[in-house]
Amino acid sequence: MMKSSVRDLAVFGSKPAFSCELPAGQLNMPEWERVEAAFRGIFDRKYYTNHGPLARELEARLEQLLGVKHAVCMTNETIALMIAAKAMGLKGKVIMPSFSFAGTGQSLIWAGLDPIFCDVDPYSHRMTGEKAATLINEDVSAILGVHMWGNPCNPRDLERLAHERGIQLYFDAAHAFGCTSDNVTIGNFGDMEVFSFHASNVLNSAEGACVCTNNDYLAARLRNIRSSYGAGNKVPIPLTGNGRMSEAQAAMALMSLEDYPGNQKRNKNIFELYTALLGILPGIRFQCPDGKNQSNYQCVVFEINEKEFCLSGGELRKLLNAENFISRRHLASGLHRTSLFRERYPRFREASPVTDQLCRQVIQLPSGQAMNEELIREVCRLITFVHENAKEIKRKMVSL
Amino acid sequence: MMKSSVRDLAVFGSKPAFSCELPAGQLNMPEWERVEAAFRGIFDRKYYTNHGPLARELEARLEQLLGVKHAVCMTNETIALMIAAKAMGLKGKVIMPSFSFAGTGQSLIWAGLDPIFCDVDPYSHRMTGEKAATLINEDVSAILGVHMWGNPCNPRDLERLAHERGIQLYFDAAHAFGCTSDNVTIGNFGDMEVFSFHASNVLNSAEGACVCTNNDYLAARLRNIRSSYGAGNKVPIPLTGNGRMSEAQAAMALMSLEDYPGNQKRNKNIFELYTALLGILPGIRFQCPDGKNQSNYQCVVFEINEKEFCLSGGELRKLLNAENFISRRHLASGLHRTSLFRERYPRFREASPVTDQLCRQVIQLPSGQAMNEELIREVCRLITFVHENAKEIKRKMVSL
Repeated sequence: MMKSSVRDLAVFGSKPAFSCELPAGQLNMPEWERVEAAFRGIFDRKYYTNHGPLARELEARLEQLLGVKHAVCMTNETIALMIAAKAMGLKGKVIMPSFSFAGTGQSLIWAGLDPIFCDVDPYSHRMTGEKAATLINEDVSAILGVHMWGNPCNPRDLERLAHERGIQLYFDAAHAFGCTSDNVTIGNFGDMEVFSFHASNVLNSAEGACVCTNNDYLAARLRNIRSSYGAGNKVPIPLTGNGRMSEAQAAMALMSLEDYPGNQKRNKNIFELYTALLGILPGIRFQCPDGKNQSNYQCVVFEINEKEFCLSGGELRKLLNAENFISRRHLASGLHRTSLFRERYPRFREASPVTDQLCRQVIQLPSGQAMNEELIREVCRLITFVHENAKEIKRKMVSL
Repeated sequence: MMKSSVRDLAVFGSKPAFSCELPAGQLNMPEWERVEAAFRGIFDRKYYTNHGPLARELEARLEQLLGVKHAVCMTNETIALMIAAKAMGLKGKVIMPSFSFAGTGQSLIWAGLDPIFCDVDPYSHRMTGEKAATLINEDVSAILGVHMWGNPCNPRDLERLAHERGIQLYFDAAHAFGCTSDNVTIGNFGDMEVFSFHASNVLNSAEGACVCTNNDYLAARLRNIRSSYGAGNKVPIPLTGNGRMSEAQAAMALMSLEDYPGNQKRNKNIFELYTALLGILPGIRFQCPDGKNQSNYQCVVFEINEKEFCLSGGELRKLLNAENFISRRHLASGLHRTSLFRERYPRFREASPVTDQLCRQVIQLPSGQAMNEELIREVCRLITFVHENAKEIKRKMVSL
C-alpha cells in the first residue's frame, strides 16, 4: 500500500505496507525436486547421521572451494565454536568484539573461558588489531575475530598481532562464507575459522556449521571431539561432545553450495538496488564492501545519522516494524550489555561506546530469496517517504 | 550360509554367514511417501528451525503421550544433558553409573561438573540407591541415573535417596522411551529425564533429544538456555546455547512417534524369538523386562558365562564379528576406564569391578527394522552351532 500522507503510516493506525513480514535473513532454498531426490537418496542408503557419505562429500567440496586443508562440519555454530575452543586448548581469557552475536560470546562460557570485550571501529564495525592489542595481558590465550555483514574483518591485521604476542587466533565467519581478504578465501585465516550454515546465512542447511583449518593436528582434534573419536586419527583431546552433522543437513548444504554463485549474484543485485535508491538520502550510510575483496552481500545494513535524517534509528525501526518490515537491529545490544554478560562482567558495561552507538544506529534491510525488485522498490519508497516527512512524523510520534 | 563344520566359520577364513552387516541399532524409518509429504510441508512453510510448528506439535504430543508437563526438544542428547545440568544449576560433583555411555559422562565435563562413578548391580546392570548412597558427600549436587536396555533403573529408589539427602536427580533415558516404572511413564521421574532420538533408539529423528520435566521453572530455564531466550517466559539463566531442534528432526520424530506401537511390538517379538531360541543354551543369561513394567525391548543383550558356554565374551564377539554380525559390546569399557576419564580421574580406575566384568560378558544381538524372523533364526543357529562346537573352536582360536 502506497503512503500518500503521514496518517497512512501503520504506526499511526493505518494498514501495514506489507501484508506479511519481510525477512532479513537469506532463507535460500533449492527447488523441491532436488530436495526430494537428495532425501530419497538418504532413505535408500539408510545412513542418517555421523560423518555419512553426504557429510564427507560436503567436507571435500568445501575444502576444494575454499582452498583449505580441512573442513570439519558440525550441527550448529555455537557447538562448533565450543569444540573449536577446546580443540585449540584455550585457557583463561579470549578477546572478542562487543559488537557481535550472543552465541559467539556464549561459546566461550561453555568452553570454560572468559571473554574480554573489545570495542569496534565506528566506520568498519570491526575490531582492529590496534584496539585488541591494548587488551592483551598474560591471561589472554586467544583472539576471536568476527567477520561482519558479508565482509571480512581485516584478518591479516589480527594475524600479525596474534603472532607477535604468541597467542592463538580464530574467527566467527558466520557472515563471510565465500568472501576473500587480500585475495585469500575466508576459511584460511588464523588457526581456525568457523562458518554458520543457519538458514539466515547465505549457505543454508537449516542449522549447520563448519570449522576450517590448515592445521592437521587441530583438524584431528576437532574430528575426535566432534563425535567421541568418531572420525580421523586418534589424538589426545580434553573431552568429547556431539557436534555431528546429519545427512539431512549435509544434503541441504550441498545443494546450497551449488546455488551459491546465483545467490551471491542476487544478493549483489539487491545490495546495489538498495544503495542506488537509498544511498542518496541524507543521514544514511551503507556498509559497503571495499571493492577489492569478494563479498557475499548477505546483509544490507546502514547507519542512520539522526541529525541529517531527522529521525533516530529507534524511531525509524518502530515505524518500519509497524509496516511489517522486520527492520531489526541485527544486534539489539552489544554483548557487554546483554543480561548474561552484564551481570557476569560488570566492568565491561561502559567500555564499548562505539558498539553502543552502532546498536542504536544500524538498521538491516530485508534481503534473501524472498525479496524481488518490486518489493525492494516499495521498501525504498517507504523509507524515502518517511525521510521526506520526517519532521511531521517525529512530532506525531512524540504523542504516541 | 549354514555352517556344517568348524572350518566353515569366517574367523577361520571361510565366507561370512551374512553378506552385509547386521545392525544392533533400531534404525526405524517410516515409508518414503510419508517422509516426502512431511518434508514438502516444511518447504512450503519456509520455517526451517528454532521451535517451529512441527517442533511445537512434537512437544505437545510427547507431553500428552508421556503424561508429563513439559517436553523440551533439542538437537541431540549430549547437548540436552549439558543444558539440563545448567538449567538445574548443578555445581561440583554428580554421581552416575560407570556402566554408561560416553556422552552421558562428557555432558558433565562440558557443564563444568565432575562425575563420581558408581559401580552397578551385576544382575540388573543398574546403579542402586544403596550403592549411590555410599558416594554422597558435601560436594555432590546431583545423581544422574541411567535407564538401560529398554528397562527403567529403579527410579523410585534413586528418588528416595535424592530426597533424603537434599540433592537433585535426573536421568539419561536414551534407552527407555515408552517404558514405565511402577505404572508411571519414564519422563516423569526425578527433576528431569532426557531422551535421545538418535537413529539407534526406538524413536528416531536421526539426531534429536527431549528433556522432560514436571517443574515449570526448570522448563522455562531449559527453553531459555536452548536458544538465547528463544521460547517461553524469560527467567534467570547462567548462559545460553544452541540446542535447537530443526523442523526436519521434528518431522522425523513425529512420524516415528506414530510408528512407536508397531515398532515396540516388533521389538518384543524379536526379543521373544531370541530368548526362546538362545535362552536354553547353558551360559547365556538375557536381560529381561520384569514383566510388571512396560519395556520398549529396544536392546536384546545377554551375558555370557565362560565356564558354562565354554567360550568367553571376547571370543564369541570375535567369531560373530567375522560373520558380519556386529555383536558389539554396547559399552566397550566402563566410563571409568575410557581414556578421557581414566586420565582425569585415576582414583576410579579400579572402583567398578562389576562394570568391568559386564563389559567383558555382555553381548548385544542385532535388532531393529532391518531384522526379520529368518535372519534371527539364522543368527541363533550360528550361536547354537558355536556353542555345540565350543571346545574345538576354542582350541583352534588359540592358534590364530
